Amino acid sequence: MFDLKLAARQNTNHSSVIQVGDEFIGKEELCLIAGPCAVETEAQLNQIAKGISKLGVKFMRGGAYKPRTSPYAFQGLQKEGLKLLKSAAQKYNLKIVTEVLDTSLIEEVYPFADILQVGSRNAKNYQFLKELGKLDKPILLKRGMSSTVNEWLLAAEYILLGGNQNVILCERGIRTFDTSTRNTMDIAAIPLAKELSHLPVIADPSQGTGKRSLVTPLSLAAVAAGADGLMIEVHNEPEEALSDGFQSIYLSKLGAYIKAIQAQAKLSNRTLNLNIPNKIS
Amino acid sequence: MFDLKLAARQNTNHSSVIQVGDEFIGKEELCLIAGPCAVETEAQLNQIAKGISKLGVKFMRGGAYKPRTSPYAFQGLQKEGLKLLKSAAQKYNLKIVTEVLDTSLIEEVYPFADILQVGSRNAKNYQFLKELGKLDKPILLKRGMSSTVNEWLLAAEYILLGGNQNVILCERGIRTFDTSTRNTMDIAAIPLAKELSHLPVIADPSQGTGKRSLVTPLSLAAVAAGADGLMIEVHNEPEEALSDGFQSIYLSKLGAYIKAIQAQAKLSNRTLNLNIPNKIS
Amino acid sequence: MFDLKLAARQNTNHSSVIQVGDEFIGKEELCLIAGPCAVETEAQLNQIAKGISKLGVKFMRGGAYKPRTSPYAFQGLQKEGLKLLKSAAQKYNLKIVTEVLDTSLIEEVYPFADILQVGSRNAKNYQFLKELGKLDKPILLKRGMSSTVNEWLLAAEYILLGGNQNVILCERGIRTFDTSTRNTMDIAAIPLAKELSHLPVIADPSQGTGKRSLVTPLSLAAVAAGADGLMIEVHNEPEEALSDGFQSIYLSKLGAYIKAIQAQAKLSNRTLNLNIPNKIS
Amino acid sequence: MFDLKLAARQNTNHSSVIQVGDEFIGKEELCLIAGPCAVETEAQLNQIAKGISKLGVKFMRGGAYKPRTSPYAFQGLQKEGLKLLKSAAQKYNLKIVTEVLDTSLIEEVYPFADILQVGSRNAKNYQFLKELGKLDKPILLKRGMSSTVNEWLLAAEYILLGGNQNVILCERGIRTFDTSTRNTMDIAAIPLAKELSHLPVIADPSQGTGKRSLVTPLSLAAVAAGADGLMIEVHNEPEEALSDGFQSIYLSKLGAYIKAIQAQAKLSNRTLNLNIPNKIS
Repeated sequence: MFDLKLAARQNTNHSSVIQVGDEFIGKEELCLIAGPCAVETEAQLNQIAKGISKLGVKFMRGGAYKPRTSPYAFQGLQKEGLKLLKSAAQKYNLKIVTEVLDTSLIEEVYPFADILQVGSRNAKNYQFLKELGKLDKPILLKRGMSSTVNEWLLAAEYILLGGNQNVILCERGIRTFDTSTRNTMDIAAIPLAKELSHLPVIADPSQGTGKRSLVTPLSLAAVAAGADGLMIEVHNEPEEALSDGFQSIYLSKLGAYIKAIQAQAKLSNRTLNLNIPNKIS
Repeated sequence: MFDLKLAARQNTNHSSVIQVGDEFIGKEELCLIAGPCAVETEAQLNQIAKGISKLGVKFMRGGAYKPRTSPYAFQGLQKEGLKLLKSAAQKYNLKIVTEVLDTSLIEEVYPFADILQVGSRNAKNYQFLKELGKLDKPILLKRGMSSTVNEWLLAAEYILLGGNQNVILCERGIRTFDTSTRNTMDIAAIPLAKELSHLPVIADPSQGTGKRSLVTPLSLAAVAAGADGLMIEVHNEPEEALSDGFQSIYLSKLGAYIKAIQAQAKLSNRTLNLNIPNKIS
Repeated sequence: MFDLKLAARQNTNHSSVIQVGDEFIGKEELCLIAGPCAVETEAQLNQIAKGISKLGVKFMRGGAYKPRTSPYAFQGLQKEGLKLLKSAAQKYNLKIVTEVLDTSLIEEVYPFADILQVGSRNAKNYQFLKELGKLDKPILLKRGMSSTVNEWLLAAEYILLGGNQNVILCERGIRTFDTSTRNTMDIAAIPLAKELSHLPVIADPSQGTGKRSLVTPLSLAAVAAGADGLMIEVHNEPEEALSDGFQSIYLSKLGAYIKAIQAQAKLSNRTLNLNIPNKIS
Repeated sequence: MFDLKLAARQNTNHSSVIQVGDEFIGKEELCLIAGPCAVETEAQLNQIAKGISKLGVKFMRGGAYKPRTSPYAFQGLQKEGLKLLKSAAQKYNLKIVTEVLDTSLIEEVYPFADILQVGSRNAKNYQFLKELGKLDKPILLKRGMSSTVNEWLLAAEYILLGGNQNVILCERGIRTFDTSTRNTMDIAAIPLAKELSHLPVIADPSQGTGKRSLVTPLSLAAVAAGADGLMIEVHNEPEEALSDGFQSIYLSKLGAYIKAIQAQAKLSNRTLNLNIPNKIS
């Protein structure tokens, strides 16, 4: 256990709000980041972008560079993927959240992203975190699959210390002996991180469970436990996805998902930050 | 992965309801089991029993035999503790949930318990599970701290195969590399166990987190994810508790806790099974 | 971390020696316990007993009661298996190491065993450990699959405190995220346990790795790290074994195994305790 | 589990030998890499370099850039540290093994290192591994603290696929629930990795155990299990070390350590690759 300085919560009322253009993360409104695991084709991305924006979603996720366990698996469309993201974002007025894999790619990814995502595999790559600390764009910092809560917050400390105060924490499951789910979603880490730190904390139940049927219950659980937002994988044709389709919810079910989250958010006097607020039926 | 037979869910509508006297677990009503980690004195137990029954709680937990890591730690009042539980239960009309540590203690504990609890350390003690399969009282089967979901359900299978169909599953956290919390509460295991099995599943966020401030958020999370009930540790003076006071909520805060759970339950069209239904303020 | 009392090493020279009839465990001589995972038939057991005794092995393992994850898997020959063990032991002058699964079975197993084995699933079954503390026969205490070294030693403390000073510790692997091997053999726990405690420590690389090809290298590693003995699964026909054949070495290869261990033992000025000392070729 | 191609062992006799200048890793001779956790001062490094070279050690480790959990901990002397390593290496005729933390530092570290080390925290940083695949110097690839054996070998596959065939695998312990030791040294992973792959495998028991007293027994265990070499932390004044002194062995004890390893190596008909072969007393 190391002491936190910049990332530490000083008092109960001290909570950071991260500005992303004209949007805010960490306020009463919960953020919802939705989109495909990976950018695959222009048609795929546009269909998803159109579908989610129609439901009021303001943030789109999508990987252009994918960190894959096997070098023979689809590695992402890379630069081409970034362009497709930008184009869809402009067309549908979406903020882009996309992963930057490495220091050498920061310059390339920077102009295309509204929020730069640090993946679980980079959560202890301190040299990289130092570089991200020099940027002026928000960083979505995923918890390492073997990071303790303290280590996760210290990773944020590296970025804050570099001068970038815009860090959003993201719980995405840890690696345990139980492979019933892809990762073990550590829901308790959400209120604990918020107790120890002033930074906003969101949850990624797609990566956290690796199983479509668990995404909604774990999303509700995360919000019930105090999460400031959710990041989920949505696909128009999950069965055809080039990566992780098994954990993506159907685009056609996103409306129902949003309603469920809105009802849950309301319970803690929060709302979901959407362009066209959906009504709870 | 081994195949389940008796414990397996056959179809969507197939859900077991466990009868405990005139009460039911696994119906629309969520059960709430509250009480001290351990029975300590008559005064302590009576004060807690009185307090929880006043709030409508119908099930009281309390350990008479305690499985302690060190042989020099308080081992429970044993037979004397069982008598105190019975006496308080009769006085305040409470159903008793208490742990039976070993086959050799079944006969002793049986008359004092309405639900016999199998602790995490016994979750793979198959000979013991076979013995419990011969009983006619409900078994609260905690998940082993290193049991996969499949192994947890197979433990239930042992009891069912013995002839006792009254098994309630209880998620209480698993052991992982992260010691920020006492255990890592595996919230995803709740909907997953319910997907795979027809047995009711409750959650123990006291043992699951080991931290008082996390008990309410994790209780809400468990209910949001579909739990059929909660088991929590409540103490009149947690600071003076002989065991695990740090994870017990204050008896004086139980009313507020109940209201929060009721509101959460309502979201999924469920209620909390209480004698005197509290109103949500 | 809890303090040890009876199990704690007091000084460098303080090491317990456990007497088993006219044999000793914890002296310069390393013990070798070999035999099948489970007793299956009289023919199987006799063939293995004959084979190992011919090579000088003095201790035979064999499960009569088997703790199986699935209730539909072979549960052992039970009482019949105990009788077969006794008969083979008498015929071939072998000491018997066999698991006792539960308090209710102590009386049954006691007369048939020279060393009573406590399995990994019972490593935190404190009521059972208390009962074993009342016996006058040695206990082989396996480490729990989720027990820290401190918890493992505290389990021994329970037995010692009951009055039985004859405890042999057995490292058999812990449960981790990596399923490449059945368990993760924690070789460092061997010298660490010996540093903290005066009790002898042996290793079970069959259970620890779950893979035949790893049994010899891990046996050598355990001895190199200071183990006081080895317990391994040997079968005349592993492919036909009713349980765990994949981790049993061939009886026909046991001679070569023994030679390798003898050479390793010699390096730390130890020998292998055998009736007919094999020469290193 | 993903299939290996380039990293897979094709047949029993197929073992890669990595050339490092005029030295070889993966032959009958075991390599020994010794040195401080971090380069601290010119005096410290020179004293250690002198001490180890006098004992015949040919490879020196030493971190110039250190990946530290806290941004407030000593981060290494960086460029200055690299220069000190080079200078000591030239003076004492040592090959340098040092960590490169990030793609952005490859160019800087490259000229100073004979072997580039990839740390546990970078073990799944695939973009970085791709870059290392373009180099012509050997890569010492540590296993990730949460990498399965398959994932570790796939990380090597990334480097091989890039064109760099010179990969040395290093087991350094994995992260488990047990914090008795800093990591849990997975000794079985050594023979398993050698069974699955043709690449040489060495062990780092300093990082693997985090405890000085366990470094020798675990070094012996690793060699007994088939390791092709060892990497250990040695310090002239461990108590004064700026990082990880508790796991460094005393320079004054290195001679005795070497003798113990030589004796162990001899058992498998191997020797330790040293300039001045020490005799076994």
